[in-house]
Amino acid sequence: MLTYPKTELNKVKRGTKRAVYDVEQINHILDAGFIGFIGCNYNGKTITLPMAYGRIDNKVYLHGSLKNRMLLALIAAKEASMTVMHLDGLVLARSGLHHSVNYRSATLFASVRKVEDPEEKKTALKCVVDHMIPDRWETLRPMNTKELNATLVLEMEIQSASAKIRDEGVVDEKSDLELPIWAGIVPLKQVAKLPVRDALLPKQLKTPKHVVTYYKKNKT
Amino acid sequence: MLTYPKTELNKVKRGTKRAVYDVEQINHILDAGFIGFIGCNYNGKTITLPMAYGRIDNKVYLHGSLKNRMLLALIAAKEASMTVMHLDGLVLARSGLHHSVNYRSATLFASVRKVEDPEEKKTALKCVVDHMIPDRWETLRPMNTKELNATLVLEMEIQSASAKIRDEGVVDEKSDLELPIWAGIVPLKQVAKLPVRDALLPKQLKTPKHVVTYYKKNKT
Repeated sequence: MLTYPKTELNKVKRGTKRAVYDVEQINHILDAGFIGFIGCNYNGKTITLPMAYGRIDNKVYLHGSLKNRMLLALIAAKEASMTVMHLDGLVLARSGLHHSVNYRSATLFASVRKVEDPEEKKTALKCVVDHMIPDRWETLRPMNTKELNATLVLEMEIQSASAKIRDEGVVDEKSDLELPIWAGIVPLKQVAKLPVRDALLPKQLKTPKHVVTYYKKNKT
Repeated sequence: MLTYPKTELNKVKRGTKRAVYDVEQINHILDAGFIGFIGCNYNGKTITLPMAYGRIDNKVYLHGSLKNRMLLALIAAKEASMTVMHLDGLVLARSGLHHSVNYRSATLFASVRKVEDPEEKKTALKCVVDHMIPDRWETLRPMNTKELNATLVLEMEIQSASAKIRDEGVVDEKSDLELPIWAGIVPLKQVAKLPVRDALLPKQLKTPKHVVTYYKKNKT
C-alpha cells in the first residue's frame, strides 16, 4: 500500500483515528468530485476559492483565463494546497457535542508549474472536462489555437497529502443512551437530475451515451 | 437593498456580470449550507479546511476543540475568510472552453473574536446545530459545563463579502450552434436519503418532526 509520509505539514492533528495517508484512497476522494478549494495569499490575507480540477496520476490540473488572479498567484508561489470534500451525512447525536457529519475530505500539498506546451495543455483540459463527466471531450468540437492561447493551465504535482474520512453511526456518551432523544444518521448525496437539452439543439440529436450513463449512475 | 461596498479585497475580478454584493442574497447562500471552506496560513503555507458554521445576522460561528489548530490561528490573526459553494449543475457546451458549472458561491471577509461568555457560547453552538438541521437543539440533552469548557467557539463578524452565481443555460459560440454535438445542463442537487435510526434507540421512539421535515424538504 503506497502512502504519503507523515510530515509536520500533512499530519492530521485532530481526530487522528480518521486520518488517511493511503494514496489510492486519497485518489478515490479526488476522483469522486471535480471541484476543489484552493487557498491563496492575497496581500497578506488568505482567500479560498473553488476551482474545477482533473487528475492524472499524481498530477492535478487547474485552468482559467490568462488573467486569473488565483492561478497567477499560485504560479508565482510555485506551490499550492487544495482540499476536496464530499459530505455524506448528518450525524445527529443525543447531545450537541456529539453532532457530526460523515464525510470524505482530502488535502493536497503540491508543487506548481505553468503548462506551456500546447499538446500538454490539451491533455490537461481534456482531463478537466472528462473529470466533470467521463468521455465527453472526444465528442466536442476540437479546441482551436486561439482558445488554447487564451487559457492558462496549471499543473499541481502532489508532494504530500492526507485525508479524513468519517463513515460511521452516532457516537454518544454511554450515560445519554437511555434518554428519549432520537439519534441517527441522515445520509446526504449529490444526485443528478434529468439532463436539460439546450433549446437550440436539432430535434433529431439524441442524448449521447456518456450523458445518459452519467445520469443513470448519479440519479439516486 | 443592502449591499457590501466593493473594495480591492472583495471585488470579483473575473466574470463580473455574475458578481453579487447584495447582503440578502449572500445570506441566502450561507443559509443553504453549513460547511464552509476556511483558509489559514500555516508556517507561510496556505491550507484550506472545511468547517461547520452557523449564522446569526452578520455573525458566523465556528467551533472545535480547544486545541484546534485552525481556529487558534484565526483567533491569533484576528481575521478570517470563508467560502461557501453550492454546485447546481454541469454546463455541457459544444466546445471544451464553454464548459462550466451552475453554482452559488459566497466569500466572506470577517474580523474574528473568541467567544468566552458561556451563554453566548451556547447560543453560538445552538446556531451551528440548528443550521445543520433546523429545530434540533431544543430536543437535545442540554450541554453541560464540562463540554462547554472543552469547546472553542469563534465568532466571525462579516466586514465584507461577495458572491458569484451562475444560473443559466449553455453559452456557445454562434459558429458552433450548427454542430451535431449535444449540449445542455445536468442539474445537480444534494439530497437527503431516508434517516437511519441509531441501533440503540428504544423501539417506541418515533422519528421526530424536525427530522421528518428535513427529510421531506430535501429528499428530491
